Amino acid sequence: MTDTRIADIRVTPIAFSDPPLRNNAGCHQPYALRSIIEVETEGGIVGLGETHAGKELLDGMTDLAPRLIGMDVTDLNGLWAHARRALWPMPDPRVQLRVVAGIEVAMWDAYGKATDRRVCDLLGGQMRKTAPFSAYLFYKFAKHAGSDTADMWGEVATPEQLVNEAHTLVDQHGFRSFKVKAGVLPPDEEIAGLEALREAFPNAPLRLDPNGGWHLHTTLDLLPRLDGLVQYLEDPTHGIPAMATVQAATEIPLATSMCITSDADLPEGISRKAAQVILSDHHYWGGLQATRELARICAIWGVGLSMHSNSHLGISLAAMAHLAVSLPHLSYDCDTHYPWQTDEVIEGGKLRFDKGALTLPEGPGLGVTLDRDALKRLHQNYLDCGYTERDDASEMRKHRPDWQYAHPRF
Amino acid sequence: MTDTRIADIRVTPIAFSDPPLRNNAGCHQPYALRSIIEVETEGGIVGLGETHAGKELLDGMTDLAPRLIGMDVTDLNGLWAHARRALWPMPDPRVQLRVVAGIEVAMWDAYGKATDRRVCDLLGGQMRKTAPFSAYLFYKFAKHAGSDTADMWGEVATPEQLVNEAHTLVDQHGFRSFKVKAGVLPPDEEIAGLEALREAFPNAPLRLDPNGGWHLHTTLDLLPRLDGLVQYLEDPTHGIPAMATVQAATEIPLATSMCITSDADLPEGISRKAAQVILSDHHYWGGLQATRELARICAIWGVGLSMHSNSHLGISLAAMAHLAVSLPHLSYDCDTHYPWQTDEVIEGGKLRFDKGALTLPEGPGLGVTLDRDALKRLHQNYLDCGYTERDDASEMRKHRPDWQYAHPRF
Ligand SMILES: [Mg+2]
Ligand SMILES: [Mg+2]
Repeated sequence: MTDTRIADIRVTPIAFSDPPLRNNAGCHQPYALRSIIEVETEGGIVGLGETHAGKELLDGMTDLAPRLIGMDVTDLNGLWAHARRALWPMPDPRVQLRVVAGIEVAMWDAYGKATDRRVCDLLGGQMRKTAPFSAYLFYKFAKHAGSDTADMWGEVATPEQLVNEAHTLVDQHGFRSFKVKAGVLPPDEEIAGLEALREAFPNAPLRLDPNGGWHLHTTLDLLPRLDGLVQYLEDPTHGIPAMATVQAATEIPLATSMCITSDADLPEGISRKAAQVILSDHHYWGGLQATRELARICAIWGVGLSMHSNSHLGISLAAMAHLAVSLPHLSYDCDTHYPWQTDEVIEGGKLRFDKGALTLPEGPGLGVTLDRDALKRLHQNYLDCGYTERDDASEMRKHRPDWQYAHPRF
Repeated sequence: MTDTRIADIRVTPIAFSDPPLRNNAGCHQPYALRSIIEVETEGGIVGLGETHAGKELLDGMTDLAPRLIGMDVTDLNGLWAHARRALWPMPDPRVQLRVVAGIEVAMWDAYGKATDRRVCDLLGGQMRKTAPFSAYLFYKFAKHAGSDTADMWGEVATPEQLVNEAHTLVDQHGFRSFKVKAGVLPPDEEIAGLEALREAFPNAPLRLDPNGGWHLHTTLDLLPRLDGLVQYLEDPTHGIPAMATVQAATEIPLATSMCITSDADLPEGISRKAAQVILSDHHYWGGLQATRELARICAIWGVGLSMHSNSHLGISLAAMAHLAVSLPHLSYDCDTHYPWQTDEVIEGGKLRFDKGALTLPEGPGLGVTLDRDALKRLHQNYLDCGYTERDDASEMRKHRPDWQYAHPRF
């Protein structure tokens, strides 16, 4: 047996190009931040993880990583115990889970690479051939603030532009379902966008995610127009009580990646029936094992399961795919921002979707390896861009100086 | 990597000596039944499992086992998928889970032995040095019906005899907590037994398990006498509604191994607060992974966790111990019938408790290997004794011809 004790953990913050995608909280900046985690074993194996970034998260990594030296890469209980001691309490408890998630994935990857097994096999076995994803549609600006040239997507603000964006994503990746990031334009305009998508793609499941940006009364008023149009309605309004009120008023399944995002939300969220679908995210829930356990909970309580995403690169995509193919209970195509990213940090460049689904990259562990030149370049981006936190609101005011954050907005 | 695909699965029913222990449903027969499972890999590794017996279970094994040939021992999803196809619907769905559990444990053991890792490490890592158990006290007859000689324990029917039994178990194994199998004698006598134990062991946690044998009104009447006397009260009465009524009426934590015993019971059992402690049993819940996930559910919903037992030998004890040391959320000493058994099927004979706790047997996997002579002998016992199902009621009528099953009884 190769020695799978942890010899070193390296955390590298990176920044990669991101288009000016709009959401309820503002607009994506020219660079998105991410952390790349390398867990190196005594046997010389390097396991990879990817998670969120930001000062608090990096401080957490700096605090936690040295405590894990000498621990076996299978010791997830040890990881959690150290994380609780090292990181608790954090100003934002969500960050703690994102720290754990980044390291946990790298531990699984190292374990798989050391034992010549794929992560999906270590997670209980491959249940489906490919990991299914949906097209993630955004309203967007034509170019970043201060930039002279429009990107290849141009502006997306009208139903016609939204359908064009959808066609491009389908042409490139073969997606068969669509999710619209909403809460950006007045609801009438966004529903008109959905109706245009329905006309252009008569059989494709459609989803709308206002990111909690609608008032409760707005949501209740809009339900008749959405019934029969969407596969599920994601976080139309904010908080478990309001979501439960909506869910009690409609047959449309509600999905959430906002009101049930950690263990602490489950008892109330489930007992109040705040959503019929939980959009898991292994970065949010503390890793692959915790998310697999969430899936079991969803199966037991009759709650659907799919996957949420933030802007991410290929290590996260590979982890999502290994998890997705190994979950007995996965009810819907998963979300991913991946098609919006042009940079990559893994060898061989971007992973490719076929008919909207991802075949697992070949090889043990996650099946991906680090492109060290790319890592160096993206880390330099990080140093050069000067961002330390994601800030969609400030970015939005560069486009619309009078824009104000409002939640709910409509 | 050694080839860990399943080449063969062997299931051997055995019968081992059991004392005339009494419970609400009758009396233990001279032999208890069990199934020993061997999962042999293409690489020649043999993983061990142990589970319940009985015709339906053996039929299930015969149906399921051939379908698993060629599957990797890590493929728990495959095991469950095959089990659902092969075994569903079974006349008794509980049997399905016990079939899966026996094979699942053997798959973990084979996986561990093939990769030189202990099962507790594969389950996430060792959280505590030893697995803590409590002394399991029974009322009993002096000898089996038709036998001439009393066993070493003699009759246990009075408070004094119960305390003597407790002293013997403590002397032999160092237990520090006690569970009394109740629902046998009128509640007044059993509570007198508890009070005698309290006097003899002033600081030891005490538990009472009437096995659902008390009426709801009896239970409610007895609560004041039990408050402060027991650490928890296990299944005083039967069913989620009645248990919830009791739990609402008392500060005493209720524990259950009867009203929440599978996934289907969890939503109602938890929402109605039928118990504050779930006594998990990996044989009931479908194996080690399912029980680890149950532990996560208990942690999230604020429910305590311990372990239930049936008459079992060392393979089950080793599996329980590996699970117990790897569960972050284990609230109480575990139950085990093991000290009542004199036969053994593993090499080296009986595992030994120290101060009531079990140190994991050394070595990869579960750390135990099969004593093939003992297996042969115990299988011959099975053939000779002629039992095909556990039948405590018939056995009881050999002692007390007018005895009738009654549930609740008091
Ligand atoms: Mg969302
Ligand atoms: Mg019980």
